Amino acid sequence: MRMSEGVEWGLHCCVTLAWLEGDGPVSTARLAASFELPAAYLNKRLQALVRAGILSSTPGARGGFQLARSPERITLMDVVAAIEGTDDVFRCTEIRRRGAGAAASGREFGRPCGIATAMRQAELAWRRELAAQTLADVMAGTPASAAERTRRWFAAERTHT
Amino acid sequence: MRMSEGVEWGLHCCVTLAWLEGDGPVSTARLAASFELPAAYLNKRLQALVRAGILSSTPGARGGFQLARSPERITLMDVVAAIEGTDDVFRCTEIRRRGAGAAASGREFGRPCGIATAMRQAELAWRRELAAQTLADVMAGTPASAAERTRRWFAAERTHT
Repeated sequence: MRMSEGVEWGLHCCVTLAWLEGDGPVSTARLAASFELPAAYLNKRLQALVRAGILSSTPGARGGFQLARSPERITLMDVVAAIEGTDDVFRCTEIRRRGAGAAASGREFGRPCGIATAMRQAELAWRRELAAQTLADVMAGTPASAAERTRRWFAAERTHT
Repeated sequence: MRMSEGVEWGLHCCVTLAWLEGDGPVSTARLAASFELPAAYLNKRLQALVRAGILSSTPGARGGFQLARSPERITLMDVVAAIEGTDDVFRCTEIRRRGAGAAASGREFGRPCGIATAMRQAELAWRRELAAQTLADVMAGTPASAAERTRRWFAAERTHT
């Protein structure tokens, strides 16, 4: 079981866009180049972030992506949900009702399966933790040199193109 | 992102084996029939639980599987780790070092990536919750009628075969 690499891409792009705040939209090509990522695949992830209201996109030659709201208001859960969806990781297929369970009274299954309930409770602890951490929190733990270096790299790119 | 259905199978089989405690080993064929699962695939999951020390297996015509320790000492985390492995769900591929990051000093990367750290922290909350819940806890939340029905079903199976 593995989370899509798009989550790592999306989170890093959001942090980059937060660092470049005020510089106007950033194109997929430049974001892709800044991490050496395949532009077409990255664009799909960025579009998913737009649909989730995390990024806004501006069309046209000078267009691209910007954060749609401040890093304090974007949680890790928002980005994970935008890229991975919101389905439970553990999906109960109710095997308890099959085979030996087929003859059971419906009443026995009135309560949700104890296994599914316990698994869901654990997953909620994960989602709560993801929802408790914002992009701003993550950025606060990143060395200032990374932000400066990123700004310099994009500024140099702008000069060249 | 989805957990293997083998986790649901493994957890239900462990609960069933706990209910049948004292009846001797239970074969893959009978466990598979009790949930209408494909026996060959189920066997792979059961073997993984044996390798993890959760089940013990007895070879031979009357052989099969039993819990290797009491349900109080088997956590949901044990079963998930046995079936899914222990790799992080979010895997950092260090894209921060590529492209714009290639020119950065190594010192900037001395600390782990803030994104990876935050994602790992959230995942730990999930694993802690899985590790805090035992099979015995799950069984305590299951209707007694399910345990009785399961015992009756396996007893009838034994008579027929």
